[in-house]
Amino acid sequence: MGEFDFIAQHFRPLAGRGAMELRNDGATMALPAGEELVLSSDTMVEGLHFLPDDPADTVARKLLRCNLSDLAAMGARPRHYMLNVSVPAGRHYDENWFTKFASGLAADQKQYDISLLGGDTTGSPSPLMLNVTILGSVRQGEVLRRDGAQPGDGVWVTGSLGRAALGLQVRLGKLDGGEASLVEAYRIPTPRVGLSLYGIVSAAMDISDGLVQDCGHIAEESGVAITLFEEKLPFTSEVMAHMATHREMILLGGDDYELLMTCPPTQEDALQVHCREHNVPLTKVGTVTEGQGVTMLDKQQQTISFSRTGWQHF
Amino acid sequence: MGEFDFIAQHFRPLAGRGAMELRNDGATMALPAGEELVLSSDTMVEGLHFLPDDPADTVARKLLRCNLSDLAAMGARPRHYMLNVSVPAGRHYDENWFTKFASGLAADQKQYDISLLGGDTTGSPSPLMLNVTILGSVRQGEVLRRDGAQPGDGVWVTGSLGRAALGLQVRLGKLDGGEASLVEAYRIPTPRVGLSLYGIVSAAMDISDGLVQDCGHIAEESGVAITLFEEKLPFTSEVMAHMATHREMILLGGDDYELLMTCPPTQEDALQVHCREHNVPLTKVGTVTEGQGVTMLDKQQQTISFSRTGWQHF
Repeated sequence: MGEFDFIAQHFRPLAGRGAMELRNDGATMALPAGEELVLSSDTMVEGLHFLPDDPADTVARKLLRCNLSDLAAMGARPRHYMLNVSVPAGRHYDENWFTKFASGLAADQKQYDISLLGGDTTGSPSPLMLNVTILGSVRQGEVLRRDGAQPGDGVWVTGSLGRAALGLQVRLGKLDGGEASLVEAYRIPTPRVGLSLYGIVSAAMDISDGLVQDCGHIAEESGVAITLFEEKLPFTSEVMAHMATHREMILLGGDDYELLMTCPPTQEDALQVHCREHNVPLTKVGTVTEGQGVTMLDKQQQTISFSRTGWQHF
Repeated sequence: MGEFDFIAQHFRPLAGRGAMELRNDGATMALPAGEELVLSSDTMVEGLHFLPDDPADTVARKLLRCNLSDLAAMGARPRHYMLNVSVPAGRHYDENWFTKFASGLAADQKQYDISLLGGDTTGSPSPLMLNVTILGSVRQGEVLRRDGAQPGDGVWVTGSLGRAALGLQVRLGKLDGGEASLVEAYRIPTPRVGLSLYGIVSAAMDISDGLVQDCGHIAEESGVAITLFEEKLPFTSEVMAHMATHREMILLGGDDYELLMTCPPTQEDALQVHCREHNVPLTKVGTVTEGQGVTMLDKQQQTISFSRTGWQHF
């Protein structure tokens, strides 16, 4: 099957309005009056961001959801995406694999009300490379940023932390117990789209590289210090069960795709009400102060020192 | 140097309005009233789309220009781009390489009045992978499409053909003569941005996979047949010098990034005047008729048969 048949079979059914059925090299997109475009792009490389034997449909869904999480962090409504795939020959990435891959895309297109706009398909000499550029929109000037945290604000996170990081260890055979739900958390994150946090939070981002490192981004961009309290961090019991043996991995682990926000005290009620109305768990985990850097305190109010801060790609 | 310093050093100076200095995972873009967004995406893989020892600045410029050519084919004005790079460790893709790569991006940003909006940087287990999603805009409803060709239209191309295909052969050591200008054509295409062809041409695309194959796309999308005349194809003398030995490669070769258009007879004067005013060479190379498929006729009006039609990526 050639490139054009491949695109027609697997991706044309996913094409939305503006995609011109993927028959062009490009696509168009209209923007509602008074809105601005919000974009983000994430690449997933076989062996680095997913494993060769991960199910194709979960690889597809994670690819979309990492990008959806970036939009959520900016307060944008998801609309479309561009998909780029570079496919190694002579491997197991065949018709069956891509049929399943496309079914994962289709499921999340439906769930998040988005559609495929276009992209590119090439060969690859070695790993399977997947890239999505996602397009959303937000009312003009209402994008959430990282640089608005102020001393006195609280630090909040959605959901729970550490499950995906442990799930990866299970997948790598490095964690006994093999809880399927941890693997599921690693494979299919839950992007927190659909909230309306403009005017409530002072800064926001998603936790992809680990809580401490991502707090570092907000601290740096906002010119503030952040203190986190270990005992306040939201962990499920299945994560707590590994705390004694994998504490640093849990505290620093990435791939959560939860929202990390700072919020002035005057807006804390509004934040809690809004998240409750959307069934999004919410926990206050720290405070913003003057200064710089990120500190995590243990139950005895002692600073925890880590051997690293989080995930960097190279 | 970590991921964040790498981005700060090489890519932050390229960031435009809406990019938030690349400090977010995302970016924003406003669209002028009455315009719609036009997007295209192209991936370049080391060993497939460029050679490991190609100069970094020309790799960068080709990456942008392939994408710019897609916008040109849709009649859109280029505005911004998202850049994704996946970098193999332990190779020659080091600080020096990326300094030169960024200088190529900077040169073409200036030349085409575009800026970097955002993107993603990851590692790669093997090849260097580069991807750009380019964003342009066009007056609502005025995007050029591939499906409007009508029987009776002429088929037109800009510039000249075959130089890039021969340039690649020079680079691969498969073509004696080693003309530097052919290599230059392969490395740095000239996207035909800046024309205003809406209402003049009936269909348009850019020639990236080879004239015959790309005519096939217009023929298929428009439901027409296209006949090309070999003797009318625009070749420079340096290309003609290889015609006896490399005819099929020249006639089918890709990477031209010239515009391929169909134009009704009533608009031919307008097309020629417009291209002349913009110093864009223009040649009528064929006709559109009822039927399907693409035929190329030689000087004796005999159908030329090819062993393949053009470039497919897998």
